[in-house]
Amino acid sequence: MTPPFNPVTAQIIDHLRQIVGAENLSTAQADIDLHARDQSQHRASPAEVVVWPAAPQHVADTLKLANEHRLPVTPWGVGTGLEGSSIPLFGGILLSFERMNQIVELHADDFQVTVQPGIGHKDLNAQLARHGLFFPPDPGANATVGGMLANNAAGIRTVRYGASKDNVLRMQVALADGRLIHVGSRSVKQSAGYDLLHLFVGSEGTLGIITEATLKLIPVPEHMSAVVAAFPTVKAAVETVVAVRGSGLDPAALEFIDAAHCRMLSSAEGVDLTENPTLFMEFHAAQQSTLSAGLEIVRQICEEMGALNFRATTDTAERKRLWHARHHSYEIMVRMHPDKQFFINDVAVPISAYPELIGFVEQIRAERNIPSTMIGHAGDGNIHVEFPFANDAEYQQAMDANGAIVLKALELGGTSTGEHGVGIGKAKYMPVEHGPALDVMRSIKQTLDPNGILNPGKIFPG
Amino acid sequence: MTPPFNPVTAQIIDHLRQIVGAENLSTAQADIDLHARDQSQHRASPAEVVVWPAAPQHVADTLKLANEHRLPVTPWGVGTGLEGSSIPLFGGILLSFERMNQIVELHADDFQVTVQPGIGHKDLNAQLARHGLFFPPDPGANATVGGMLANNAAGIRTVRYGASKDNVLRMQVALADGRLIHVGSRSVKQSAGYDLLHLFVGSEGTLGIITEATLKLIPVPEHMSAVVAAFPTVKAAVETVVAVRGSGLDPAALEFIDAAHCRMLSSAEGVDLTENPTLFMEFHAAQQSTLSAGLEIVRQICEEMGALNFRATTDTAERKRLWHARHHSYEIMVRMHPDKQFFINDVAVPISAYPELIGFVEQIRAERNIPSTMIGHAGDGNIHVEFPFANDAEYQQAMDANGAIVLKALELGGTSTGEHGVGIGKAKYMPVEHGPALDVMRSIKQTLDPNGILNPGKIFPG
Repeated sequence: MTPPFNPVTAQIIDHLRQIVGAENLSTAQADIDLHARDQSQHRASPAEVVVWPAAPQHVADTLKLANEHRLPVTPWGVGTGLEGSSIPLFGGILLSFERMNQIVELHADDFQVTVQPGIGHKDLNAQLARHGLFFPPDPGANATVGGMLANNAAGIRTVRYGASKDNVLRMQVALADGRLIHVGSRSVKQSAGYDLLHLFVGSEGTLGIITEATLKLIPVPEHMSAVVAAFPTVKAAVETVVAVRGSGLDPAALEFIDAAHCRMLSSAEGVDLTENPTLFMEFHAAQQSTLSAGLEIVRQICEEMGALNFRATTDTAERKRLWHARHHSYEIMVRMHPDKQFFINDVAVPISAYPELIGFVEQIRAERNIPSTMIGHAGDGNIHVEFPFANDAEYQQAMDANGAIVLKALELGGTSTGEHGVGIGKAKYMPVEHGPALDVMRSIKQTLDPNGILNPGKIFPG
Repeated sequence: MTPPFNPVTAQIIDHLRQIVGAENLSTAQADIDLHARDQSQHRASPAEVVVWPAAPQHVADTLKLANEHRLPVTPWGVGTGLEGSSIPLFGGILLSFERMNQIVELHADDFQVTVQPGIGHKDLNAQLARHGLFFPPDPGANATVGGMLANNAAGIRTVRYGASKDNVLRMQVALADGRLIHVGSRSVKQSAGYDLLHLFVGSEGTLGIITEATLKLIPVPEHMSAVVAAFPTVKAAVETVVAVRGSGLDPAALEFIDAAHCRMLSSAEGVDLTENPTLFMEFHAAQQSTLSAGLEIVRQICEEMGALNFRATTDTAERKRLWHARHHSYEIMVRMHPDKQFFINDVAVPISAYPELIGFVEQIRAERNIPSTMIGHAGDGNIHVEFPFANDAEYQQAMDANGAIVLKALELGGTSTGEHGVGIGKAKYMPVEHGPALDVMRSIKQTLDPNGILNPGKIFPG
């Protein structure tokens, strides 16, 4: 249930100009259009005004105004979301963090950095590199840190370093009524009351809007290796994932790519992959000897599981080339299919259930004869099935298959979304995933945002 | 503000008997007394009835009854708390989890275990050892898992493996109105709505009561080493902590013990410590070579920082003897001072501020001539100053010093409690630590427990 909202009037626009300055506001159609949809297949929906706050107080004052006048507010990072979380479904104010993209303070001795929410994680890591530090969560795109936190984004290195929620210590948050609060602590340990930090992380801007964040950093590992191994069957590949995880090794990445997707990467990027179910792995260590010992264990496991080929490299250039292909797999796929749109599924299960989940996906694809590829953060039990579509019928077929896969993941003790968030598309699965806990989420939403102005239409089914 | 409560009547007792069975309830004075205080200096306060639930539904039904009749309910693990979190300040129902102490299911392939909340973490780890797995958070005492989660307890190995909040995936929680909900997921990745899991972890039973938990486990490391190094000054010792953390090494323990405490451990446990500020460290690795390389780096750092002596051992018996002394330091101290009670301070700061914090403690102790010892999880920026007292004047002196140390830790960007929780003693610092975020915590408390029956008198200042 979304409350009725009021339109953004000329008077509101004037008031917003006073808050953020005339140069930080636009009602031009081009700006509205640029912020009407994200990278997903979800339908565009225009805001009435785009506002670029330049300071936390701008955000707080904008929310206070919106709350008083019952105007919806949708926060926007850079639009790389895959579930429509940043689409201003009910119009109103689009709050873009493009101009709040600075490092506020580097705490190098503490391996921490405080940033504005609009900084891209790749841009951040480029600046941190000279200090030998990095912020490990790594969705493929150059998502903003604020967007990553709002969405609890994750990626290729989450298997070792955790998701966004595991790499943040403190945030400043603007509440619906215009209060600015701090949550969490720069102390890595804190047992002082309720963990509001993690309540706001992953809440997709529906409880409050992140205006500053202090992140945990990791020293850039001194030694890294890449492993690529191909298997005769999907089953052998994913069972190898379980075996590697069970060995006690601590891979920094453990990715599964199906045969069809390997073919795409090979032809587009010139990486030399055979057309088989393939695992990409990465290992990090402070000592070369540790790396070598670990690689030997991985080689043995892969051989025992019937690997067709096995390649390990500590050569930086080769490692980067391989991972570049993996990192850009989505863009490559889109580029190679100019006539198609893509719907990207995102479910995750406990690792022991991964082979059953992947087996189910294969079965669904075969039974229904649905073209699709698979690529996944296998080490976390996370898979993305990529469904191309060119018309409504194909889209509906993809959505039906997605629904079956989501319900299977939930049945296996997993989740409807490992890292893309709920946004618009996953809202309908929340009752199944959470049961009566969803009512608790609703009551917290009602408490913190009684007028429902914060990113309406997301997370909760209508 | 605590609402008025009703007394536990004979009729209520009858009803409780119907819920949990006559054998799981007592109003005997001996049972009341056993559950009236924890290990802290906080004053005893008796419940009116002790109830031992045997199943989650018992907990839920008890809460429903208590909520309808406005009776306070205080959850109890095993009474090892240090801030009075389990003391039934307003009488009512004491809910002891002593009889819900079983492993529900081991998910060995997932490195997970589902347990009832009353299991002691040492008992759990004894059972997990045969599977080569362990649950890493390790407060010194045999605290229950439920108590550890409610309190977000931490300990010696938190520097590497995290606090309780970092080692739990899913919980079942009974709400004040008798609903039973599940929060979190056995999938290690989840971006599906609000993180209620972490809202309940650390809430000290004031938002809901944990009735089951699925924990993350870690493979027992194949190789471990212990390092002990003594320094001429406290400053040299704590600056070594910062240097070790900054080196990129990943110690599994990094503990600071002051000269006075070293003297106690030496005389009581026969461990051969010099009477100097001393660091205890532990390192874990899958390969012996990794361990050796790391130890060499640590030795170099300690020498550069002016260590008076440096001892490293990979001998299991010697390592265990050293750590046994550290683990039992609290009991040793209490045993050696039969005429004293102890107040244990617990603050934490960002690691770069640790030398300044410790310098401040030393200054306070010297200026005020207060007898005390220091022991701390230095790698996390966490310190415990132990104040002995034998009368009200000494107690007041200790509390005053504690207050000054807490405010200093907050000034340095830290927290009033790194791992002991808020309970009774730290409630008065919550407004300083959280500012307006404390109002958000209150509103969430009001939403989930409108009648204030859940562990009243804790976390929030009166």
